[in-house]
Amino acid sequence: MNRYEEGLERLREVSGEAGPAVLDSLSDIAPGFARLVAEFGYADIYGRPGLNLRQRQLINVAALTAMGTAAPQLRFHADAALHVGVTPEELVEAVLHMAIYAGFPAALNGLAVVREVFAARGVVFEPPAPLEGDRYARGARLLEEVDGHAGTAVVDALADIAPDFARMIIEFSFGEIYARPGLDLKSRELATVGACVALGTARPQLRVHLHGLLNVGGTREEAVETIIQVAGYAGFPAALNGLGVAREVFGERDASQSESRDTSAATD
Amino acid sequence: MNRYEEGLERLREVSGEAGPAVLDSLSDIAPGFARLVAEFGYADIYGRPGLNLRQRQLINVAALTAMGTAAPQLRFHADAALHVGVTPEELVEAVLHMAIYAGFPAALNGLAVVREVFAARGVVFEPPAPLEGDRYARGARLLEEVDGHAGTAVVDALADIAPDFARMIIEFSFGEIYARPGLDLKSRELATVGACVALGTARPQLRVHLHGLLNVGGTREEAVETIIQVAGYAGFPAALNGLGVAREVFGERDASQSESRDTSAATD
Amino acid sequence: MNRYEEGLERLREVSGEAGPAVLDSLSDIAPGFARLVAEFGYADIYGRPGLNLRQRQLINVAALTAMGTAAPQLRFHADAALHVGVTPEELVEAVLHMAIYAGFPAALNGLAVVREVFAARGVVFEPPAPLEGDRYARGARLLEEVDGHAGTAVVDALADIAPDFARMIIEFSFGEIYARPGLDLKSRELATVGACVALGTARPQLRVHLHGLLNVGGTREEAVETIIQVAGYAGFPAALNGLGVAREVFGERDASQSESRDTSAATD
Repeated sequence: MNRYEEGLERLREVSGEAGPAVLDSLSDIAPGFARLVAEFGYADIYGRPGLNLRQRQLINVAALTAMGTAAPQLRFHADAALHVGVTPEELVEAVLHMAIYAGFPAALNGLAVVREVFAARGVVFEPPAPLEGDRYARGARLLEEVDGHAGTAVVDALADIAPDFARMIIEFSFGEIYARPGLDLKSRELATVGACVALGTARPQLRVHLHGLLNVGGTREEAVETIIQVAGYAGFPAALNGLGVAREVFGERDASQSESRDTSAATD
Repeated sequence: MNRYEEGLERLREVSGEAGPAVLDSLSDIAPGFARLVAEFGYADIYGRPGLNLRQRQLINVAALTAMGTAAPQLRFHADAALHVGVTPEELVEAVLHMAIYAGFPAALNGLAVVREVFAARGVVFEPPAPLEGDRYARGARLLEEVDGHAGTAVVDALADIAPDFARMIIEFSFGEIYARPGLDLKSRELATVGACVALGTARPQLRVHLHGLLNVGGTREEAVETIIQVAGYAGFPAALNGLGVAREVFGERDASQSESRDTSAATD
Repeated sequence: MNRYEEGLERLREVSGEAGPAVLDSLSDIAPGFARLVAEFGYADIYGRPGLNLRQRQLINVAALTAMGTAAPQLRFHADAALHVGVTPEELVEAVLHMAIYAGFPAALNGLAVVREVFAARGVVFEPPAPLEGDRYARGARLLEEVDGHAGTAVVDALADIAPDFARMIIEFSFGEIYARPGLDLKSRELATVGACVALGTARPQLRVHLHGLLNVGGTREEAVETIIQVAGYAGFPAALNGLGVAREVFGERDASQSESRDTSAATD
């Protein structure tokens, strides 16, 4: 099986017949490019180990929602997400999660696309029940779990200029969005890393959330694969710059662990 | 009155019945998110002091025009701008002002949305008369007024590589756009700061125009509130990175004032 | 002939009657802005030497495709590109080239616009035959030709974190896209520089490809003009920040040449 056939087979696995139909639609003007979509996008990228298809689709949905410039592709990948087993609730949550990183318009316009996909598939969606309890306490606990010291540092750094905004990060971002059921923390961090790489304007946040992904059980391989996965949707510069941040984050963690070992050796 | 009721009331104040209708439309798929829009967006953000509703709507219109990714929300906020007393001329000017910061396509596509809003409201718009006089002189005077030394420094820095482009900044950006009647200088700087925060790609310009806002009578509170206002439309990373620039700018101004005091003391 | 008449004449040269029609459509709401489009956009920018109309249109098409936020303007400039003599194949290639820098969705959505333009003009397009031979060898040769040491450095820097991604850059970006016939290397670098300036998120890549443009026969004047050309489509901050990178690149090349001269003098 050559790369094109391999890509086409994986494209069918991801999207059913929707993907091959998109490729066919390019035959009049860019058949060679259609071949590249299959070969590069699906044989080379989707064929890599390190992330499963559900994770790749959640990352795509997050990145395309955050970018806000690619509604046809968001529709395609939201549909494909359901095709590979992402639940309707996970799909909605991945889109809503982008309110934090790309703003409410991005999330609202993403929801409109998801609603179309649900209608076309006849999905009857049951929204989750409202959260109960204190959102500040809930948010502070989640911020600590995801970001550890880095999250506290972000909040502390705002004390002199916008302490209320720090409270919003805890209450809204973590207490209201991260705390929602339906999408586990690790998937939220995969989505966050994918979106920050795609936006290309959120380098400090990408750094914090690469740490966050590793803090909640993600591996370095998953982090790198998430960044590479985004190359196809936001371009190679986005991915290259994201890999640069990942290198720094991995170095920081190595240094920190080696320091712990040194301290531990010194106190032996 | 709880946060949801408070948010809903303010949403009605901002947009009439259009806002509640948007929230209702989310009931099938994301009712909890609709609640967050009211609570976070309108009780928490719009409820803050430091900017009035007209200013908040001008900032939204500027940011959404510059982003170019959220036409439905731009339509909503352009309509709401008129609802809270922004004049048709101010609305048009806030959109046109974005030609400088996000390019002509952003401004042209924003105008198309404004035209729809005018048509739906039956607004009969009378464009302003053309400017008379020398645009270079007009632009140089406004550049000095808004940016002071920083503006001159930007222009001087281009002397070795693109002196003609420096002339365009003076003649086009300041002489043709800033000089237009219908939107006062402080509002233009609020719009500029909002747009540069939302774009996330214009850090040096954000720095210059945070100084500019303070130079033309804006306060530090207004600067911080403008940045926080944008969080809902472009995401928390945009706002966090904007606050980082604001901290630097405030520090520079403190240092400069303290230096003036030292010099003044030394020469007493 | 005043600036407005000069701009209008050049707008006709670029776009036929399509451009004046756009300006007329603004008469109800922003006639002064229509005048600025003609004066600033077409008298000031298009009137500059250093790039011909075909090059300017290729750069516009690349930048607008990469931005993904301005479909009406992309349609206008794709049509104008054909009007000034860009071939259908060059137009398709400039759009496809953006898959590297802005992702597949940007390229696919750009192709959809080009297809509309072809249909409206009755263009019957014959896609090029598939490339033959080893894409890795082809890509490595082109990477060396375009980027020289800088390209190798980018690839080497990935060895520790994502060596497979470095292979993809060689095989996909250079072996599959740069290698396609129908758009010469210098035009590809003009398109790349224009897109990286417009995106505003690809500073390291802008640096590499400003070198690349100069490496494949572009001049410093063409580099500067490309950046200034983008000001109208992505805003002045994008262009100003691009000029800052150009200044660094020119300085590096001056230093490197002066070093060569010193070494050469020392060994005389």
